[in-house]
Amino acid sequence: MADGQSYPVDEVNKVKRRHDRGHYDHETVHALLDSAVLCHVSYVIDGQPFCTPTLYWREGTRLYWHGSSASRMLRNLSEGEPACLTVTHLDSLVLARCGFNHSADYRSVMAFGKARIVEDQAEKEQALVMMVDRIFPGRTAQLRQSDKQEIKATAVIYMDIEKASAKIRAKGVADDDEDYLLPIYAERLPIYTVIGKPEPCPRLMDGVARPANLAPYATGRLLEEAAKESYAAAYAVTEKA
Amino acid sequence: MADGQSYPVDEVNKVKRRHDRGHYDHETVHALLDSAVLCHVSYVIDGQPFCTPTLYWREGTRLYWHGSSASRMLRNLSEGEPACLTVTHLDSLVLARCGFNHSADYRSVMAFGKARIVEDQAEKEQALVMMVDRIFPGRTAQLRQSDKQEIKATAVIYMDIEKASAKIRAKGVADDDEDYLLPIYAERLPIYTVIGKPEPCPRLMDGVARPANLAPYATGRLLEEAAKESYAAAYAVTEKA
Repeated sequence: MADGQSYPVDEVNKVKRRHDRGHYDHETVHALLDSAVLCHVSYVIDGQPFCTPTLYWREGTRLYWHGSSASRMLRNLSEGEPACLTVTHLDSLVLARCGFNHSADYRSVMAFGKARIVEDQAEKEQALVMMVDRIFPGRTAQLRQSDKQEIKATAVIYMDIEKASAKIRAKGVADDDEDYLLPIYAERLPIYTVIGKPEPCPRLMDGVARPANLAPYATGRLLEEAAKESYAAAYAVTEKA
Repeated sequence: MADGQSYPVDEVNKVKRRHDRGHYDHETVHALLDSAVLCHVSYVIDGQPFCTPTLYWREGTRLYWHGSSASRMLRNLSEGEPACLTVTHLDSLVLARCGFNHSADYRSVMAFGKARIVEDQAEKEQALVMMVDRIFPGRTAQLRQSDKQEIKATAVIYMDIEKASAKIRAKGVADDDEDYLLPIYAERLPIYTVIGKPEPCPRLMDGVARPANLAPYATGRLLEEAAKESYAAAYAVTEKA
């Protein structure tokens, strides 16, 4: 998937503090985007910023997200509104030998562009398929199909990424040289986001079993591993089609 | 901790879509804020929204966060800049019998106010203590103390919450009545954020053991449980002092 390309860097997306943690290449940015399902989107209405959590996914350099949780925003978006979509993997809390060096390991992406509503009906219907199939490849074909009212009631937003940056800290404890000689305890405390035991709907019809395409969502697995794998599967299918 | 109070509701923080999921009382909002360590803060520079992940904590109706990761913002904040701080607990992915009813269980808070830099030196020094002790109560006293340069190099931001809303979905699969009769598999897939096995710094001095005050951060525990417990411990200590 590596295309060797990078996002342009300017005042908006340049990682200023700790610039050694900054990355702008498509490969790094996209890999982080594709291994999560939850993002936070920022937008502005009358000078007031809003930060809304939502599900999202990527196609090339275009991001999509579910617009229904952002109804305030939708009314303002048809012209395209500046937005920032951020994805964060929290990997650890870092306990150092002084307060200043306490930190966290993390991998985050901030993507900037103009958010717009998907108006084209065919693109919208395809997006509604991928909203589900990006996480659970092949699932839409197993479902009761959406009716016109449902399609109308769901808003899908897209944003072509104009600029983006990834910021990665992955070094655990990093104390000042002289502090390593102090009798103070320090550790890296890993944080994982994992999949729990699936809870089948209590109202399943007799004989209905968990379909094989959900196997990547296995108890105890890292959500990011399942998300990465399902993303690759979902888009390999689409590209062949 | 319940004070019976609520945040005022207006166009900014009213939960419009799925308004049955909205809560405005201090008890609900504060409990969600105190059981997480990572937030996303939105702010605006020259019409461009930014969404930045950072560590944060609450004191009463004031939120604090670490400003160093938002250096762009800091230059603009001394007058107070409109901001939105959002915290999201993703609790499950919900696989329904149609695409439209696919969802997620989550608990989120959006808090609105004006962000400002903590300028008062005594408040700043106390905030730098709580930045660590809010997560690891009593830890700062065990550390090499901060020097003037370190204190100067860290920026702390605060925001008095003017408006806030919590939004909670906690119902798992919720299909249309007639869809329950279809032979389609549906489940709630729980998602947990958990603490991994602590990784002691390889350069610890001989005989330095993990201190007892880190016990809440035990392998396999939910991060939110440890965060909630340590928050209560940290602020009980402060209130007694």
